[in-house]
Amino acid sequence: MQIEYKGKKYIFEGKVTPVEVAKKIGIDLKPILVAEVNGELFDLSRNIPGDAKIDFFGFDSDKGKKVFWHSSTHILATAVKRLYPDAVLGIGPSIDEGFYYDFYNLKIGDNDLERIEKEAKKVVDEDLKFIRTEKTVQEAKKEVANNKFKLEILDNLKGTVSFYSNGEFSDLCRGPHIPSTRYVKALKLLKVAGAYWRGDSSKEVMTRIYGISFPSKKDMDEYLKMIEERKEHDHKKIGKELGLFFFSEESPGSPFFLPNGTVVYNELIRFARELDLKYGYQEIITPIIAKIDVWKTSGHFDKYRENMYKVSPFSSENEEYGLKPMNCPFSVIAFKTRTRSYRDLPLRLADYGFLHRYELEGTLDGLLRTRILEQNDAHIYVTEEQIEEEILRIFEMMKEIYEKFDLKPMFVLATRPEKRIGSDEIWDASEEALRKALTKSGYKYTVKEGDGAFYGPKIDVYVLDFSGKPEYAYATSTIQIDFNLTQRFQATYVGKDNKEHFPVVIHRSIMGSIGRFMGIILENGKGDLPLWLSPVQARVLTITERNKDYAHKLLDRLKKEGLRVDIDDGNSTLDYKIRSGQLEKIPFLIVIGDKEEKNNTIALRGRDGKTEYGLTVDDFIRDAVKAIKNRSR
Amino acid sequence: MQIEYKGKKYIFEGKVTPVEVAKKIGIDLKPILVAEVNGELFDLSRNIPGDAKIDFFGFDSDKGKKVFWHSSTHILATAVKRLYPDAVLGIGPSIDEGFYYDFYNLKIGDNDLERIEKEAKKVVDEDLKFIRTEKTVQEAKKEVANNKFKLEILDNLKGTVSFYSNGEFSDLCRGPHIPSTRYVKALKLLKVAGAYWRGDSSKEVMTRIYGISFPSKKDMDEYLKMIEERKEHDHKKIGKELGLFFFSEESPGSPFFLPNGTVVYNELIRFARELDLKYGYQEIITPIIAKIDVWKTSGHFDKYRENMYKVSPFSSENEEYGLKPMNCPFSVIAFKTRTRSYRDLPLRLADYGFLHRYELEGTLDGLLRTRILEQNDAHIYVTEEQIEEEILRIFEMMKEIYEKFDLKPMFVLATRPEKRIGSDEIWDASEEALRKALTKSGYKYTVKEGDGAFYGPKIDVYVLDFSGKPEYAYATSTIQIDFNLTQRFQATYVGKDNKEHFPVVIHRSIMGSIGRFMGIILENGKGDLPLWLSPVQARVLTITERNKDYAHKLLDRLKKEGLRVDIDDGNSTLDYKIRSGQLEKIPFLIVIGDKEEKNNTIALRGRDGKTEYGLTVDDFIRDAVKAIKNRSR
Repeated sequence: MQIEYKGKKYIFEGKVTPVEVAKKIGIDLKPILVAEVNGELFDLSRNIPGDAKIDFFGFDSDKGKKVFWHSSTHILATAVKRLYPDAVLGIGPSIDEGFYYDFYNLKIGDNDLERIEKEAKKVVDEDLKFIRTEKTVQEAKKEVANNKFKLEILDNLKGTVSFYSNGEFSDLCRGPHIPSTRYVKALKLLKVAGAYWRGDSSKEVMTRIYGISFPSKKDMDEYLKMIEERKEHDHKKIGKELGLFFFSEESPGSPFFLPNGTVVYNELIRFARELDLKYGYQEIITPIIAKIDVWKTSGHFDKYRENMYKVSPFSSENEEYGLKPMNCPFSVIAFKTRTRSYRDLPLRLADYGFLHRYELEGTLDGLLRTRILEQNDAHIYVTEEQIEEEILRIFEMMKEIYEKFDLKPMFVLATRPEKRIGSDEIWDASEEALRKALTKSGYKYTVKEGDGAFYGPKIDVYVLDFSGKPEYAYATSTIQIDFNLTQRFQATYVGKDNKEHFPVVIHRSIMGSIGRFMGIILENGKGDLPLWLSPVQARVLTITERNKDYAHKLLDRLKKEGLRVDIDDGNSTLDYKIRSGQLEKIPFLIVIGDKEEKNNTIALRGRDGKTEYGLTVDDFIRDAVKAIKNRSR
Repeated sequence: MQIEYKGKKYIFEGKVTPVEVAKKIGIDLKPILVAEVNGELFDLSRNIPGDAKIDFFGFDSDKGKKVFWHSSTHILATAVKRLYPDAVLGIGPSIDEGFYYDFYNLKIGDNDLERIEKEAKKVVDEDLKFIRTEKTVQEAKKEVANNKFKLEILDNLKGTVSFYSNGEFSDLCRGPHIPSTRYVKALKLLKVAGAYWRGDSSKEVMTRIYGISFPSKKDMDEYLKMIEERKEHDHKKIGKELGLFFFSEESPGSPFFLPNGTVVYNELIRFARELDLKYGYQEIITPIIAKIDVWKTSGHFDKYRENMYKVSPFSSENEEYGLKPMNCPFSVIAFKTRTRSYRDLPLRLADYGFLHRYELEGTLDGLLRTRILEQNDAHIYVTEEQIEEEILRIFEMMKEIYEKFDLKPMFVLATRPEKRIGSDEIWDASEEALRKALTKSGYKYTVKEGDGAFYGPKIDVYVLDFSGKPEYAYATSTIQIDFNLTQRFQATYVGKDNKEHFPVVIHRSIMGSIGRFMGIILENGKGDLPLWLSPVQARVLTITERNKDYAHKLLDRLKKEGLRVDIDDGNSTLDYKIRSGQLEKIPFLIVIGDKEEKNNTIALRGRDGKTEYGLTVDDFIRDAVKAIKNRSR
């Protein structure tokens, strides 16, 4: 048998398993959890059926993690069945972070998790091997005759299925698994929740146990620390504490921005608009609904319908519209309102339209994933030759935005997929333009070969979160080249040759959804917003009742200078007032006592906790106004 | 028989007609066209059946106009039947301005109108009396046996119906009519159009002739002049010429604002937001869709459903939402997010949400009547005692806005209707508060008794159009008191008595729809926008090629100062460049020749056509920046 590993070929006599291959090649077995044989994940101990390409994965890969966490569900289920023999097995998948297992007829609460976790650790210590056996569907049905959930699963399968056992426990399972329970050095059960069988509200309610596991105790400690930290950074928590926004069951996935949040939101839009002006964009305002035909022409009706909303007047239900999920079709319609010449290109049309995208309720996540969004969106109409320069201009704008918020971007170039439109020449040229622009910009980037859209290559941009780990980065910007849109809408420009040509369109949004962007900067800054974005930029605090008049005069003056200020002239102690101001993340606390009033000065306490005494009001105003104008961090 | 006229009673023996009553009372018969008897419009020559209240109407009233125009349709039909005996009568109503008659089997074009008009004038000159006769439906059917349209109408009628004849012409018609054709001193046919019978696209296509008529030639001349003038003021024409906005069949009633129009739109919003800040409003941003239940709670589903759009995800059609036609429910939901105290009131929440209202396609009118709109909307939560002061504050803001655009407002107070909620005390108090505020503000107002909403009285505000005639005024602002909304949503505040109370809500929008407001100022100013609103505030014009460098330096400097400027440095003549700038309604044309370049000055041509020579660039910038900042007219 011939086994290929990273380009090298190895010959084996008779049957061979991945673990044997690894040994022969001389791969360190310790971190290895699973093999991939001809593209299929394989237990390390499973016989390789014939000539194959092989690869190996550990916990440092997504594939390894998934197998590790899935095996952990079997450990969890083993423990549950030992403690609650009447519990009926549902299914147990890995998820983005950890795993869960769904049981029926299991009445437990979070208090019971410790006991189950203890039993699961016993299962780990017993070092039980995961053993694969194969059965026909018919045999399998006999095996699980008492479990209607497994029977339902088997109803949809044909031919041979597999079971995995560890010790006395056995489960219908596609696999693969890690070699033994002992690989799981740290396991924690997180919570119990109810969930419908297969997510169907007409079916049984299952008891779902969530957990996480790692190959070392150190990994677990780091993870738990990260979870704690993430809670502190959670924009939903911060948004509530600072009164920025809230969500209501009346319109799931649609944020309500409260007055403080609206200040932040509108300032972000204003910033984006100023940059649009600076970088030569013109803004248009377009409708929110359009006839279905538009979405058919644009291709959204075919490709994106599942995420779209249908709109009809109650009094005229035959009229069908779609709520726009993207601005593109409207941009092209505006482009077409007059004859365009090559001299008009690049034509940069910005559009801050509200978009609606139907996302499943379970995937909604505060401002980070909503059903309504408003992007700093634009469509740029260019000739092929203009792509590179235009991308560089976008990068320049991007740099200015990201630096303003101290965001660290990551770039991914997605190239031509197998199924695509457009000539090889235009793909060559535009991919080359994107590469060149990336190189010139000095940004590092990775390439996802074949991951482009069928109508053009793109650059996706992510920004790092507080942890700095790439796997947790937020997607923000997209720069998408599109050869198709203007053809679909028959939108042309007159070239130098006096003939009509289809312009290439660059879809680009730099901040992405403004609400989401707000969520990101709230998380990264733990709620500390830069001065210019802060809903309340300064608060005047009185030390005694005597200073009230002076404090109010100062307040009025600061307001007149355009600062967003308020006052705390109540009877509580200065310490209490300072503490409140800090909790509300107010950048400047201006303390006014007798000395300040006498000398016409202020004591200024910044967010760093340091206080500057004897500052003149004029100096403060000058510095603050300048910092706001420059949008200094 | 006892006839009452304006409170006085008159006794008549035997049968009597309105014209006889008028004679006896001593009313000038000349301007009188029709009577109203016990609330029903009556021919002047028709017998009054018994004791009655009577009133009389001439062309200066809506009722008189309608009868006059409807009678004119019979004159038109008489003429058509004389010239085209095979034409089949449809129906002929009066409309807002004039009338039309629908005919079947009449193949004519606009060219034929002169001939028909000439014949109609003959009918007028013949001074034919309009004579009413009554018939049973059965008799009537015999009379119109050859006319399937009239038969269809009769199918839906019972008992007695009336016919009106003038000379040889007779028509099934409810009436009433003016006494004779001679009353129509001026009549003009305007256009021919096709229209489905009864507006139903499955029915016959009728030939519709539009016309207008007046009781004097002078009225007609004034009208035709006004029509010509109105064309010049038409915002749709101006919007096209200045490239401000356009409409597309892809989303009827939804304006697309082009770059120039978006500048105007965004500046209007910016102005409104600054005023919100000045007058103590806080802004919130709320969703665009909400579950149907919200609209049931708010009452919109019951009362406003015909104008609402239903929204459902394509992939989950059971989920039903409504596109918001108003912001109110979301405002209350935001109000409820925290416990409110009497100390928080008045709480002023502004919301610039996009609203969708399904208006019939035929009623759409450019920016003046759209299906999507964004208002400078707000909801103010107050105690009953705070209403008057709050209304005064709204008036103050209104004054500032209207004066900025030189708009002349008209006020109408609408008081309690018969069907209403709320105690007499609260109606007394709030109507009194509105009256007091109106009186204090110095605004003149009229009262529409009984025209308030069932949940509170309101003030409607109109602004005059270029003609200054109240009947053509645009509706702009509404100030609506609402005792009901907070009760529907159970939104309360804690009063001084430590108990929960429902706050009164004041709905108010001052500019109304921002797009519509833009339409109004475009019409009133014939496209001349104030400097601060102009998409291009200044254009630099070169006299010769030699001045190009200097002109571009100047352009850059003006841009840096924040002015919206462009340049015309082409080869056309200065006269041509000036003419173009004027057509584009650019406030400042800056002419640069050798002399200007040498002296570092500019020649400034304003919209008044006057040119100021030798102005220094610094002086121009200072004045322009100041005028923009102050939003001077």
